Amino acid sequence: MALELPFINRALDHLLQELPAPSRPAARHTVEAGGKRLRPLLCLLCARLLGADESNGGRERLYRLACTLEMLHAATLMHDDVIDNADLRRGQPAAHTVYGNTEAILAGDALLSTANACVAACGSTKLCDVFARATAETAAGEILELHALRNCNLASEEYLAIIRGKTACLIRAACEMGAIFANASDEQVAAFGTYGEALGMAFQIVDDALDVADAEVIGKPTGGDLREGKLTPPLQLWRASLSPEEREVFNDKFTRGAFTEEEVADTCKKIRAAGIDTQVRAMAQGYLDTAKDAIMSLPKGSDLDVLLEILTYVRDRRK
Amino acid sequence: MALELPFINRALDHLLQELPAPSRPAARHTVEAGGKRLRPLLCLLCARLLGADESNGGRERLYRLACTLEMLHAATLMHDDVIDNADLRRGQPAAHTVYGNTEAILAGDALLSTANACVAACGSTKLCDVFARATAETAAGEILELHALRNCNLASEEYLAIIRGKTACLIRAACEMGAIFANASDEQVAAFGTYGEALGMAFQIVDDALDVADAEVIGKPTGGDLREGKLTPPLQLWRASLSPEEREVFNDKFTRGAFTEEEVADTCKKIRAAGIDTQVRAMAQGYLDTAKDAIMSLPKGSDLDVLLEILTYVRDRRK
Repeated sequence: MALELPFINRALDHLLQELPAPSRPAARHTVEAGGKRLRPLLCLLCARLLGADESNGGRERLYRLACTLEMLHAATLMHDDVIDNADLRRGQPAAHTVYGNTEAILAGDALLSTANACVAACGSTKLCDVFARATAETAAGEILELHALRNCNLASEEYLAIIRGKTACLIRAACEMGAIFANASDEQVAAFGTYGEALGMAFQIVDDALDVADAEVIGKPTGGDLREGKLTPPLQLWRASLSPEEREVFNDKFTRGAFTEEEVADTCKKIRAAGIDTQVRAMAQGYLDTAKDAIMSLPKGSDLDVLLEILTYVRDRRK
Repeated sequence: MALELPFINRALDHLLQELPAPSRPAARHTVEAGGKRLRPLLCLLCARLLGADESNGGRERLYRLACTLEMLHAATLMHDDVIDNADLRRGQPAAHTVYGNTEAILAGDALLSTANACVAACGSTKLCDVFARATAETAAGEILELHALRNCNLASEEYLAIIRGKTACLIRAACEMGAIFANASDEQVAAFGTYGEALGMAFQIVDDALDVADAEVIGKPTGGDLREGKLTPPLQLWRASLSPEEREVFNDKFTRGAFTEEEVADTCKKIRAAGIDTQVRAMAQGYLDTAKDAIMSLPKGSDLDVLLEILTYVRDRRK
């Protein structure tokens, strides 16, 4: 898996040079701040598992296609950081703190559009369609999340619709695009889509579980969801476990965004002590099982093994 | 020309319903606030001039394709209004003042992506490529403009590069896409591209001339470019006409953004009295001539007449 990183990063570097010059610095800043490159990796693996043709420049085209997913991901991060006024991204100063909001918004637009142009260059309108729809769904998921902020009565289905949009759609698209590149049948594309979407759901649920982890153990600030008013599964389960009186206090503070830093840390500690993060990981496991089932009928081999390993990685992720 | 508007607006309405639901209100707000629909109209005219096949659903596909250009235009307006913190757009409250910055940014992203998906549905990666590149160039042009703000030494070529990016690229794309839809030869696509780009340049130069017009005559506030520090042709010519002492005062105030409202109104009045807006319109005429030359060898007929009328409309535009 890690062996692919230098190749992905080199292809990304080439693609960034194709951005119109004025948009390059802020875009490069974000893309090069790091990241796991999960989306391009998934696209590559799915294409290879289906025996994508890598001769006659096919290998380069595949890397370029895979990297469009990282470009789209980086574009959404740039816009999100402006929206959330976040200072840090991947441990580095967020692009808008260095280049200003205007440039971050516009460079995000340019990154997204150049990614669309690169997908178009692959010569398949099916790829263009999957990519464009995933982008629209991602933005829509974030709008849903925004409307749900500080809503202490958020239904589980609403939460799932939010994370399906903001996280799972793009991971599904990464897998589908790899399969389409390899000229897969509609059935195969659907199987990879199911794998990707379920993986994305699990990924986000584990991410939300990690937000109540011990900040010292995982090495980054936690409790953000409680502070910002996002009723993720750990907070939902915690709220359900409270007495009516305690719940009223929780609802009030959650709705007003009035938790002190001490209360945030204390609540996260109590959630862990109650074993709620374990329950949440079990919820993620359901999606990981779905993902596994979707690909078990595919050709055995090292690429399939890596797709299965990714499920274990998501399940066991501790930071 | 006006006869097409209801058809364009109906197709736009259908397309807006294809946006993911959470992004619809803010997007609809912007698209439905009005506008001349110049870009879709150009796409339609160019396609028809080349005898695009409108049978078997072709007519509907053409309207949908044409409307993607208005969607892209609206998306850039939504982002621009967040960036400029503008209160009004097309005489209505700007989307971000009603829905907030976050929703305006995200709905812009969804609008842009859905437009990309609609282009992809036309089944031509050439269309996808032209559309995506025009979007990237538009964002890049705006970044250039941003870097040039309050620069009193802006070279003419830099100004032209800015307006080519922020305005002319998309109008060029509208014409090229109409031609591609009609299965035009590369030569014909290039001719329409030349027409569109030159028309776009002229359009923006006239727009910049109108910014020094009498606010009472044209019925909207003027002088924005002087206030914001954009060295457009009227301001460039005005600055060149000043004595060294006067120019030093101008440079100082322009760089610091320190003109009072009275000075702005007074400067615009003096620019008009000096006949500078006439000089600027002559500059636009050069581009209009280029646009005319590019299409004169095309088949005569009512569609060609409308493309020529549009040149006259841009030249004579008084508001």
